[in-house]
Amino acid sequence: MTLIEALAREHPGITVLPASTRTAAYLHDAGTRAAAAGHDGPTVALPTTPHEVQALVRTAASLGVQVVPRGAGTGLSGGASARPDQLVISTERLRRIVEVAPLDELAVVEPGVLNADLNTHLAPYGLFYAPDPASHEISTLGGNIATNAGGLRCAKYGVTRESVLALDVVLADGSLISVGQRSVKGVTGLDLVSLFVGSEGVLGIVVGATLRLHPVPVARRTLTAFFPSTPDGARALAAITATPVRPAIVEFLDEPTLRDIDRASGSDLRTRGASLVLVEIDGYGIDEQERDLTAALVAVGGTVRAETAEDAQRLWELRRSGRGFGQGVPRWLVGEDIAVPRSALPDVYAYFSEIEARYGVDVSAVAHAGDGNLHPVVSRLISPGADPAVLPDDLIDAATDLVRFALSRGGTVSGEHGIGSTKLDWAGLELGERTVQAQRAIKHALDPDDLLNPGKAIPRADAYASAP
Amino acid sequence: MTLIEALAREHPGITVLPASTRTAAYLHDAGTRAAAAGHDGPTVALPTTPHEVQALVRTAASLGVQVVPRGAGTGLSGGASARPDQLVISTERLRRIVEVAPLDELAVVEPGVLNADLNTHLAPYGLFYAPDPASHEISTLGGNIATNAGGLRCAKYGVTRESVLALDVVLADGSLISVGQRSVKGVTGLDLVSLFVGSEGVLGIVVGATLRLHPVPVARRTLTAFFPSTPDGARALAAITATPVRPAIVEFLDEPTLRDIDRASGSDLRTRGASLVLVEIDGYGIDEQERDLTAALVAVGGTVRAETAEDAQRLWELRRSGRGFGQGVPRWLVGEDIAVPRSALPDVYAYFSEIEARYGVDVSAVAHAGDGNLHPVVSRLISPGADPAVLPDDLIDAATDLVRFALSRGGTVSGEHGIGSTKLDWAGLELGERTVQAQRAIKHALDPDDLLNPGKAIPRADAYASAP
Repeated sequence: MTLIEALAREHPGITVLPASTRTAAYLHDAGTRAAAAGHDGPTVALPTTPHEVQALVRTAASLGVQVVPRGAGTGLSGGASARPDQLVISTERLRRIVEVAPLDELAVVEPGVLNADLNTHLAPYGLFYAPDPASHEISTLGGNIATNAGGLRCAKYGVTRESVLALDVVLADGSLISVGQRSVKGVTGLDLVSLFVGSEGVLGIVVGATLRLHPVPVARRTLTAFFPSTPDGARALAAITATPVRPAIVEFLDEPTLRDIDRASGSDLRTRGASLVLVEIDGYGIDEQERDLTAALVAVGGTVRAETAEDAQRLWELRRSGRGFGQGVPRWLVGEDIAVPRSALPDVYAYFSEIEARYGVDVSAVAHAGDGNLHPVVSRLISPGADPAVLPDDLIDAATDLVRFALSRGGTVSGEHGIGSTKLDWAGLELGERTVQAQRAIKHALDPDDLLNPGKAIPRADAYASAP
Repeated sequence: MTLIEALAREHPGITVLPASTRTAAYLHDAGTRAAAAGHDGPTVALPTTPHEVQALVRTAASLGVQVVPRGAGTGLSGGASARPDQLVISTERLRRIVEVAPLDELAVVEPGVLNADLNTHLAPYGLFYAPDPASHEISTLGGNIATNAGGLRCAKYGVTRESVLALDVVLADGSLISVGQRSVKGVTGLDLVSLFVGSEGVLGIVVGATLRLHPVPVARRTLTAFFPSTPDGARALAAITATPVRPAIVEFLDEPTLRDIDRASGSDLRTRGASLVLVEIDGYGIDEQERDLTAALVAVGGTVRAETAEDAQRLWELRRSGRGFGQGVPRWLVGEDIAVPRSALPDVYAYFSEIEARYGVDVSAVAHAGDGNLHPVVSRLISPGADPAVLPDDLIDAATDLVRFALSRGGTVSGEHGIGSTKLDWAGLELGERTVQAQRAIKHALDPDDLLNPGKAIPRADAYASAP
């Protein structure tokens, strides 16, 4: 019996899209979308309940068909990309906000709820869900959990892991387990909640989540600090850490990023300075916070301003909406998601020039500077007559060079996007052989037949670095 | 070759205490210390480097000897208790503070450093390590990590897991892996850091840790709110959540606890009220925070006062130093560590009366009310002629009844002390059968011969509740 026959016979009530060119979009996620149109996609099931997810996994397992869990497909590392012989189980129709418990500051949701929709729903309660990936208007909470998504605010409020209290998870054998609890604390047995968060669908499929909420702060204020150069701005970031102010957001935009945004959006950021530290402070004592932070940033050469609410909103929209790549002259691009200890940020920006000179590329980055996470883009104009879809090897070498630099400073290949299918080799540079063995052993313990999102997130055994 | 012969031959430089009555203290931890004196204890090794820990584990593994990792032995759930045929590897002599990196707000430590000693070391930097179990002056950071220790401040600053960036861990085969990174964020592969935190020594032995620090807040202030009864105080806690103030600490002391403290310490808390909400606020805008919190607590009937620095210090000492049990008439005691969603705290305190009536016991509790974690003590006067060391069955039944109540409200058996060896049956009430299987599979994946702290932390297969 084929997969599609089995699904039709055993689960007539579940919407299933047969493998065809109509499902080509499910071959890829937002980071690997390039050349899908016209190809045959995978079989796609659209369950509406946790029980249906269990049934689908059991049917797939009985046929030995591999399963790729998927949220909204907004991931940037190929974590949700699927082959035509695989079954995609999309959780986008599990989209109920089941409960909001204000006194316990928690919400119970299904995985298909969009991040921004939860916050819209929470507004009347005076509460918010903190993790805010730039994709928050289009990404699902289930996808956020699968990637342990970060965002802008995690400098103060933590990443997704810090906001997940409990999970309902369908395992590779179709069983459903509930892990965690509704209390803030809990240490009964191993911490499976944290293990599932960020596991990119290789250990189980999240079908329900109990999320921690925070009260909307009594005040929020946006400060801009412009600096005369990228190095000046990068060095100035340490001045924030030297104060007792811990902003909700600290973003750093280098000179090429300001130019790109201006070109794409008609803004005039570059006329105000050559790099920008964009800060949101919140909470009690907002005036004292502003005073201390302004003094610190002025002392290191910044031109500091508290923005009006209207200007602030515009600035955050500019920051979140990306840099306008894809406009103008076409370029080859490699995007990264490295993170380093904050003290290494100036060195990373200084290293861009070395890479530019060595490989003949352009490098720029916006950074979640509050937590040392950068999104460098290594790019080059596409050569006349060259295939735009085929990245030159030395462009990838340049990007790998930058990854190695981050690792040499105690950083990581991926701060928030995950490893997926596109960063496995880089992950092998970070993780020692024995660590990869341990990760594979845990994967095997929960999914012995390698049915759930095989080949993602954990490097291949031959891709590891030598353990030091 | 016996264990002690092998250790002497292979590791002549490592201090090893042979199994004898001299090592009887290592049979137990602070929660199970009762009747050790005079019995033969386990073999105890006191390595001074990670390499020595590796060597010891390899030797033990080659002889099939089980290993019990141990910090200062201050645990309360029997996690570090050992049998005479086991090898205790104590990390108390790995006690270097390797590095403090102020700009990265991190410290690198060995596991034997005492929690309080790290904070003493950090004071000149204007930084602090947030997790503060009541044992902070005598417990090691390695033990804190093994139990994912909580404390008073975790309402605002999170539990130990939120303060661990990276770990060096010796696995059951003696290999050493480094997991995590020095940046705040990192999602490369599975989150092994979180998995090791709180794993109570069953997956590996922590031999190094990179810890996240916080800036000392610009201000700290202690507020007391006394209420005319325990139920009044318990109900009042919700008023704090309804404000935007998120105190660093919210403790709740019921009437019996106030009486016990007064009797043990000569204080007069009970004359000020019948229950106490003890709060520390910190950070910017301390006056506005005090104003909003005071208004909220007065509105629900509290007698609220901002304490002087001197009185505040005295109050926190009284709170941390325990309740004076063990003084006066001897009692049978069962201590608990349940946690519930905060909204359920009034119901838990109300349920104490039911349990007292049903089982003929006394129940009182101090609560880390900010995160719903309670430490109830179920007690009864020891019957004339009875063996003080043998707890009556119905006392344990009473305690189990309370555990079931917490679980019925979405809570947990253990908020911060861990399961160890004493709470395995209760853990079985919390975790479903398939969850226990998954935990055991992960344990088996990393320790196939069950050499590391066997029988701890994860319930036996026959102890689980039916999965719902």
